[in-house]
Amino acid sequence: MKLASLKSGRDGRLLVVSRDLSRALAVPEIAATLQGALDDWSACQGRLADVYQALNAGDIKGMMDFDPVQCAAPLPRAYHWADGSAYVTHVELVRKARGAELPASFWTDPLVYMGASDAFIGPRDDIEIESEDWGIDFEAEVVVITDDVPAGISARQAGAHIKLIGLVNDVSLRNLIPGELAKQFGFYQSKPWTSFTPVLVTPDELGDAWDGAKVSLPLRTTLNGLLVGAPDAGVDMTFDFPTLIAHCARSRSLMAGTVIGSGTVSNVGSRNGSCCLAEVRCLETIRDGRPSTPFMSFGDRIEIEMLDAEQKSIFGKIDQVVTQYHPPR
Amino acid sequence: MKLASLKSGRDGRLLVVSRDLSRALAVPEIAATLQGALDDWSACQGRLADVYQALNAGDIKGMMDFDPVQCAAPLPRAYHWADGSAYVTHVELVRKARGAELPASFWTDPLVYMGASDAFIGPRDDIEIESEDWGIDFEAEVVVITDDVPAGISARQAGAHIKLIGLVNDVSLRNLIPGELAKQFGFYQSKPWTSFTPVLVTPDELGDAWDGAKVSLPLRTTLNGLLVGAPDAGVDMTFDFPTLIAHCARSRSLMAGTVIGSGTVSNVGSRNGSCCLAEVRCLETIRDGRPSTPFMSFGDRIEIEMLDAEQKSIFGKIDQVVTQYHPPR
Repeated sequence: MKLASLKSGRDGRLLVVSRDLSRALAVPEIAATLQGALDDWSACQGRLADVYQALNAGDIKGMMDFDPVQCAAPLPRAYHWADGSAYVTHVELVRKARGAELPASFWTDPLVYMGASDAFIGPRDDIEIESEDWGIDFEAEVVVITDDVPAGISARQAGAHIKLIGLVNDVSLRNLIPGELAKQFGFYQSKPWTSFTPVLVTPDELGDAWDGAKVSLPLRTTLNGLLVGAPDAGVDMTFDFPTLIAHCARSRSLMAGTVIGSGTVSNVGSRNGSCCLAEVRCLETIRDGRPSTPFMSFGDRIEIEMLDAEQKSIFGKIDQVVTQYHPPR
Repeated sequence: MKLASLKSGRDGRLLVVSRDLSRALAVPEIAATLQGALDDWSACQGRLADVYQALNAGDIKGMMDFDPVQCAAPLPRAYHWADGSAYVTHVELVRKARGAELPASFWTDPLVYMGASDAFIGPRDDIEIESEDWGIDFEAEVVVITDDVPAGISARQAGAHIKLIGLVNDVSLRNLIPGELAKQFGFYQSKPWTSFTPVLVTPDELGDAWDGAKVSLPLRTTLNGLLVGAPDAGVDMTFDFPTLIAHCARSRSLMAGTVIGSGTVSNVGSRNGSCCLAEVRCLETIRDGRPSTPFMSFGDRIEIEMLDAEQKSIFGKIDQVVTQYHPPR
């Protein structure tokens, strides 16, 4: 099953989307919004799946063409956004580029930060940033959405709470990060926006590419039409999603609609390219002593997508342009 | 105006509460939930204020006795919870106790972390924690709730976005904090629950105690019936609320219902006592070389309240007991 949210008010309007991403249907009689469906998932899931089957089979009443441009993030606002750094090889590379050692515990204890979830942006929305001097970067990631997760759950139990899967662009302001990390309180100004693919999908949509814990497919990132990388999200993921969920629920429960992110997808040695410019620049620094690829400029276009074995888009495409934001006087 | 949420479903049921905290009325014809009212504050505010006036004046139809035991947090779940460390004197003391210098920038650049907002707990709810070994502590704070705040707003402009004010207990697991801060990604497992006073109030309810930027009244914290402290929240607040809001909105907008916290209230030299046990223990460490006050145990009772000039409770009382949580097998 594939689900999206049409732009409408603060929470969007829930759409069931056909497998080929061509058609969609609003389902207010089941749930008006995706958060509403997640709040009562066991009651809604089967009814949404019935609509999905009908939509895939052919014409149904009220059906519309599916247009990602009209899409908000599937959850336009969420109550919890926890982003991991599950591909530790990426963290190791970043440290190496600045001559720092990776603490051994980073391989056994997940790194997770709490992100801003009150305004996720849509797949075709502009990325509005005040200044290029902040070091504008993208980060292509896989995310999962949970139902209610009890505190103290084990990783073995956590997988059953994964209800939906998607991709995000975790926009990062690289030049604001060192100052924030030095204060030890985590990211804040340096993580302004997170954008989502047009649809989230239930795990069964991934077939063999989903083993209950990670997605084994290349995550393709393109900047201004040139491929930056397509690392396999199923390889070198040090902490899989059930492990991340168990970590996040260690001392408290997680509520329905919690978004858990993988962090920047990365393969050892960056052999399949990178999912953010910071990694590209680290590789250059290690090789040449300094980075040569600049961060993003106003007007730059970033595309993020994952294709299935038949080269069909699973989640639709994040396709965004960076634009200058002018604050109020 | 004073507002609360009766426990009901995931988002509670909005109540207008009389000034003396004795009576309340649900107002579904105005807004079913507090988030709903905040989403359309300019339309709801006047109508809610009319109900409040009628409730203060006497009997109105449908009125009930106000019972804090039946209250959820006023926002049982919110989209954004940013907690500052606005009383830098507290941070300085904590550093001094462990022999560390306070970076000079801490006096000019606000410290803020993103907290878990998907499940705020009610004023009389138990604080459920798995282990006393985690170092269970309370933190008494003042919070404000904003409407929509545009990115890049100045501190001068930010004050107008403060719509409601309340108190919280930011429960902290002290023995989990050093490990999390060392990873630089901020608090996560160490900040499990945040509980709220029964009501939030509009700024005008504070009269002269609100100058548009901070609350000038003692914040009283009592542990097992003994006063821990009553520092004045209007004194030694290095970063006032408009400054914190401007900091949080530096690179992105904040959505209606954003909760901004002051951090542990503290006066220089802790001359009026403390608002958390960590501060008490730091004072003991500086004086005696080691702390003698233990963190909280199961069964301990914590009360947090603020009284007006006539010694009447403004927000109602947080009054909670710590209990042991048993995770699923």
